[in-house]
Amino acid sequence: MKIAILSLFPEMFESFLNTSIIGRARQENLIDIRPVDIRPYSTKKHKNTDDYPFGGGAGMVMMAQPIVDCVRDMRSQGYKGRCIYLSPRGKQLNQQKVVELAQEEGLILLCGHYEGVDQRAIDLVVDEEISLGDFVLTGGELAAMVLTDAVARYVPGVLGSDESTGEESFTDGLLEYPQYTRPREFEGIEVPEVLLNGDHAKIRKWRREQSLLTTLRVRPDLFRKAEMTPKEREAALAAARQEAEECY
Amino acid sequence: MKIAILSLFPEMFESFLNTSIIGRARQENLIDIRPVDIRPYSTKKHKNTDDYPFGGGAGMVMMAQPIVDCVRDMRSQGYKGRCIYLSPRGKQLNQQKVVELAQEEGLILLCGHYEGVDQRAIDLVVDEEISLGDFVLTGGELAAMVLTDAVARYVPGVLGSDESTGEESFTDGLLEYPQYTRPREFEGIEVPEVLLNGDHAKIRKWRREQSLLTTLRVRPDLFRKAEMTPKEREAALAAARQEAEECY
Repeated sequence: MKIAILSLFPEMFESFLNTSIIGRARQENLIDIRPVDIRPYSTKKHKNTDDYPFGGGAGMVMMAQPIVDCVRDMRSQGYKGRCIYLSPRGKQLNQQKVVELAQEEGLILLCGHYEGVDQRAIDLVVDEEISLGDFVLTGGELAAMVLTDAVARYVPGVLGSDESTGEESFTDGLLEYPQYTRPREFEGIEVPEVLLNGDHAKIRKWRREQSLLTTLRVRPDLFRKAEMTPKEREAALAAARQEAEECY
Repeated sequence: MKIAILSLFPEMFESFLNTSIIGRARQENLIDIRPVDIRPYSTKKHKNTDDYPFGGGAGMVMMAQPIVDCVRDMRSQGYKGRCIYLSPRGKQLNQQKVVELAQEEGLILLCGHYEGVDQRAIDLVVDEEISLGDFVLTGGELAAMVLTDAVARYVPGVLGSDESTGEESFTDGLLEYPQYTRPREFEGIEVPEVLLNGDHAKIRKWRREQSLLTTLRVRPDLFRKAEMTPKEREAALAAARQEAEECY
């Protein structure tokens, strides 16, 4: 998979590209991630990339020309797949979208800055606008890293055998159950008994119940949409009611 | 504002801390962001920080001891404010939460890795779990950067006069209107006439209409919750209907 990330601050990607799981995946040539500086594409004498917004208002707007020429150059260099503009005006990223994007041959990610980019650049070369969530960042760079990281996890070989995309939050529409590791007792708090006795059917049942209860508590919106038996639903609601009573 | 970011990969923050708006804010001592390595806090001989999960399953779990000791050491060094664990099991970040966190004296951000952290660390030292959204990352580092970046924008002086937290997506519950900058015509596409004539009442009205229409198109969930006059609502719905008809 080849991902080009177009930005005014390509140096911001350096640590991300060379650390941890992404760093290892790049060293092993499992994924090609290339930060591209938009600035040299400007046809302006001083390589300007932004200008004042028509109609007034605070902030600067990124000009269409350098972006459009940069995207087209990436296309000519063999970068395929969707061109995505990371923007608070886009649809919200979710795991379903991540899995969908992981099927692409490649991606071109455009990072905005300041008050956004000229709408004509979006109209001409952007296939899709994606937002991380309902919050505002100083630029699209971190959003591009998040998207790249989430997608890279699905590239074969990127996750080691110790990691997995199988059993984790959102794969069954639920949040993950709590995890425990050694020691059995830490500052007086013991690991739940059920996890210690090796009865895998019971462990599975306990984890499923905990997933359901956590999801109900923290994300009732996901709980309502998740698949579960009527018995599971009733048990989670009963546990939540009991917790609420214990607060009094 | 003092932010400590606790991680197994503190080197991953280097470019983020030294680039663009965050880099400038740190140079000017407007904000103190300190990546802290959790590993040295391990009391294990080989400074291990993770172990197998009780009850089985793929992946490793971060042990409670190094995390708990690291957070307590940060407290003793004067890092105040909420301790937040970045985790897909948390409540979703939004701009309201960002503004709330920007009021804190400081933050301690805990980055998970692998299959998560021992629940007892969460129970003992974490005040709040926050998730970026319904997707899974290789670790909490990028989420911590996103949270730091979003919060830093509200620290006085961090945004220059060219930037602002005033007129942007989500401040009025709507997505932002499209932006245009020079030239007036680019590859045959002209800037909307209304933005060129200097009639500020008309420009405000056009931008408001565009905000409403974009929000309706991309994020009907936000459109339903946003404040608007019945006339504005009807105009946005009519424009969307007309667009839909033009597709035939």
